[in-house]
Amino acid sequence: MIPNFSFTPFPQIYFGKGEFLKLADKLAGKSKKILVLIGGSSLKKSGKLDDFTLSLNKHSINYFCEVVASEPSPELVDEIAIKCKVEEVDTVLAVGGGSVLDAGKAIAAMAPLDDGIINYLEGVGTKSHPGDTLSFIAVPTTAGTGSEATKNAVISSIGENGFKKSLRHDNFIPDCAVIDPELMLSCPKALTAACGLDNITQLLESYVSSKANPISDALAFGALEKAIPAFPKVMKNGESDLEARADMAYGAFVSGITLANAGLGIVHGFASPIGGFFDIPHGVVCGTLLPAATEQNVKRLQEQSDTIHLERLNKHIKVARIFSESKDMTDEEALQNLVARFYEWTKEFKVPRLSQYGIKESDLDRIIAASGLKNNPVNLSEFDLKEILYKRL
Amino acid sequence: MIPNFSFTPFPQIYFGKGEFLKLADKLAGKSKKILVLIGGSSLKKSGKLDDFTLSLNKHSINYFCEVVASEPSPELVDEIAIKCKVEEVDTVLAVGGGSVLDAGKAIAAMAPLDDGIINYLEGVGTKSHPGDTLSFIAVPTTAGTGSEATKNAVISSIGENGFKKSLRHDNFIPDCAVIDPELMLSCPKALTAACGLDNITQLLESYVSSKANPISDALAFGALEKAIPAFPKVMKNGESDLEARADMAYGAFVSGITLANAGLGIVHGFASPIGGFFDIPHGVVCGTLLPAATEQNVKRLQEQSDTIHLERLNKHIKVARIFSESKDMTDEEALQNLVARFYEWTKEFKVPRLSQYGIKESDLDRIIAASGLKNNPVNLSEFDLKEILYKRL
Repeated sequence: MIPNFSFTPFPQIYFGKGEFLKLADKLAGKSKKILVLIGGSSLKKSGKLDDFTLSLNKHSINYFCEVVASEPSPELVDEIAIKCKVEEVDTVLAVGGGSVLDAGKAIAAMAPLDDGIINYLEGVGTKSHPGDTLSFIAVPTTAGTGSEATKNAVISSIGENGFKKSLRHDNFIPDCAVIDPELMLSCPKALTAACGLDNITQLLESYVSSKANPISDALAFGALEKAIPAFPKVMKNGESDLEARADMAYGAFVSGITLANAGLGIVHGFASPIGGFFDIPHGVVCGTLLPAATEQNVKRLQEQSDTIHLERLNKHIKVARIFSESKDMTDEEALQNLVARFYEWTKEFKVPRLSQYGIKESDLDRIIAASGLKNNPVNLSEFDLKEILYKRL
Repeated sequence: MIPNFSFTPFPQIYFGKGEFLKLADKLAGKSKKILVLIGGSSLKKSGKLDDFTLSLNKHSINYFCEVVASEPSPELVDEIAIKCKVEEVDTVLAVGGGSVLDAGKAIAAMAPLDDGIINYLEGVGTKSHPGDTLSFIAVPTTAGTGSEATKNAVISSIGENGFKKSLRHDNFIPDCAVIDPELMLSCPKALTAACGLDNITQLLESYVSSKANPISDALAFGALEKAIPAFPKVMKNGESDLEARADMAYGAFVSGITLANAGLGIVHGFASPIGGFFDIPHGVVCGTLLPAATEQNVKRLQEQSDTIHLERLNKHIKVARIFSESKDMTDEEALQNLVARFYEWTKEFKVPRLSQYGIKESDLDRIIAASGLKNNPVNLSEFDLKEILYKRL
């Protein structure tokens, strides 16, 4: 029986090679003044930024650019939001990785308000955002967080009382996501690895989630069928294999939709506290914990005998069968192969261990105390959690 | 390689048993005055309408009801749209079959304008709608057209110069779709058959469409996996089998999404002219032509050897494998079984032939002349089209 569920609309999508440069045609007559938010210099170097601003000029669309060089802070968001207000910007267009997209989402949301973002961050502020926002267009240049499809923006404050907290509202889902795999060809290897593993973890965790529904299931599994075979290819020929980049870009976008509607599991349950306590990239946490978490989940699911857990184990088997060598294996062999292949990825693509970021055995208890199971497919004990972390120390 | 594609957002969804009666809680504080549009008397008889209006009263939400007894005419839409303007309605809520939902969609779109709908209908009027619309909530009571997810409303004018034409705009996608399978338990058998076959035809045609994309593929196939086994069950125990009703309701909703984003094929290419020339329900046209159209498509696809057509043939094989008896069959046997099972459905569920609505052999040429292939997976000749129609005369 299909469980009761709700599903939030996703953005208008334009997907495919060359779609970024077609965007100005679509904005003509709709937007008068645009903030173009960019990250590092690679977009500029590639010439694509100049091509794009030329096409804005052609349509007499006014714009100005701002740079987001690192994870967005409350101060950065407030400063650019005020500029948007003064300049009467109606559309925020963010072209970049997760940080740039999150910054753009937060700026679009704060520009209509006369207030600082800190008052609206989950767990930090006490006000609830009314949901008014400028039009927001997300153009990802990495295939990772799926921010181009989600309703939250992660804002970071560095320092002793630092935090990583979300600004969240259903209205913050981007109005439009332009997913152009050409923009991802220049993504460096280590970033490609971290983003790809984040994206696959998000897809797998939302697919086997206790909050999964038929729409998230169909989308997540379809995206895993593309992303799993594509991941080794982007690691090998990421600068030229546009087909594999497109598959990963599709996976990242879908992972944003499915995580927002079906939730995530233990890997992301660990990711928040670990990211808060230590200076370690989110994608690395996901990639390094994925094999051991999958191993533990499969082990505990195999001990259950009710229909619901059996269904979630079967989902793991379906994912395991995506690996080409699994076709003639038994279910048990395919599951073992799934875990083994995830471990191989960490070796082959040099995904760092937790200890490389200064995490020690003595830190595990406080990490576990601050972690939540989220919508993990099966209950895990403290012992299970410790085992997962210990294996990747 | 994923082809370039765009995808339009779908409505906020609330799916599951009992969701209809939870709706007033969600409207509280958002809507001040609601037009509740209903169809026949079954909702009233079941007591659900009273329960719902009570819950509106509880939240002090003003409302008035209007009845749509048949396919909506331009006059009906204009009349109720004016009432909405006078009464300062902010939300239109339509609870019913395709006609009621289409009427509600059109009324919500016309209320903000000082003009008649006839001026905005495709192929009839000359004006283009600006896209302003009242908030629109769709609550289907049949599992058929998928209107709860589409951006068009079909408006009918009866008489010598009669027509069936669409009012269409991206903004007309409902803001919210509440899909409560309990409302469908009382749907009569013949209507269940016509709706179910429309819904399955829409899913299959958009799945194998030349305009398909990874999102429509994932959603359409996932929905076919539910709807195909559920269809014989709702025909057998439709008044009590809530699980099968839920699967069909899910299929109908998804078919609205996928047809709007991936298009349809030859069955729907025939449906417009046949529905225009003869007084025959849309679902009957779909159901009666589905087997012969599938047979012809499979035959012509098997003659092609390029990758694209092979992929579309493989999609037919995947659908064929949904039928439980197909597991041990060869691909060829499974395809034959698919066509055979579609033919069996027409017999078992008494789907009328075209001749029962007065269509004669001498009508076929003008039907074919007015038909289009739409996004059919393979090119079909006039001979092919005639063969399909002739088999179902």
